[in-house]
Amino acid sequence: MPNPEKMIAAVHAYIAAFDAGDPDAVAALYAENATCEDPIGTPQHHGREAIRAFYTESMKTGAKLKLEGPIRVAGDYAVFPFSVNLHYEGSDKRIDVIDTFKFDDNDHVIEMKAYWGQINMHGF
Amino acid sequence: MPNPEKMIAAVHAYIAAFDAGDPDAVAALYAENATCEDPIGTPQHHGREAIRAFYTESMKTGAKLKLEGPIRVAGDYAVFPFSVNLHYEGSDKRIDVIDTFKFDDNDHVIEMKAYWGQINMHGF
Repeated sequence: MPNPEKMIAAVHAYIAAFDAGDPDAVAALYAENATCEDPIGTPQHHGREAIRAFYTESMKTGAKLKLEGPIRVAGDYAVFPFSVNLHYEGSDKRIDVIDTFKFDDNDHVIEMKAYWGQINMHGF
Repeated sequence: MPNPEKMIAAVHAYIAAFDAGDPDAVAALYAENATCEDPIGTPQHHGREAIRAFYTESMKTGAKLKLEGPIRVAGDYAVFPFSVNLHYEGSDKRIDVIDTFKFDDNDHVIEMKAYWGQINMHGF
């Protein structure tokens, strides 16, 4: 089983790495054969390289992430509410998201799912 | 596909029915063949009757639920952060939880998973 303290540390590291615009650091939190589905219902990114490429594109928006409540830790999952904050075309925009991170025994994210939809997009 | 407005209404109805101590009303939000896993990693309750029995027991604690942020709606999922608030043995207790509700085409919950663990229990 993954370690709860390490799972929590990984979530904080994820947010810090995203906000620093460092896709390599984000990808390093994932297992080599991980999947990433963001938002849920869209095609999965499979494997650390595809995931790195996905974050490289995402970070071009200049979005910053803000944790919006406590990280829930259950078994091999860490689940957390956060907001994605953007500024472009002269206005602030926000997306409310919840991510589920499933960890492997080496404390790497093996499966990520992001839950957000049109109803969670504000200022667009 | 389930209807986003009906999914949001179902989450609010779920919280209201739980707080009213009405397991029949909670069970009615679920599909006949639904599953409920609370917390994730424990054995699933399978079918509306087993789910009703589970909520009947849960409600005996007198717990009240409080939504702690916006409901995320993505495809056929509604996902929401909330707290479970209890008072017994002379003190207030709180558990921070995130639930994922997956809906069927009739806007009933077909799969529920609750994410919370020891680290999310306060005042116990």
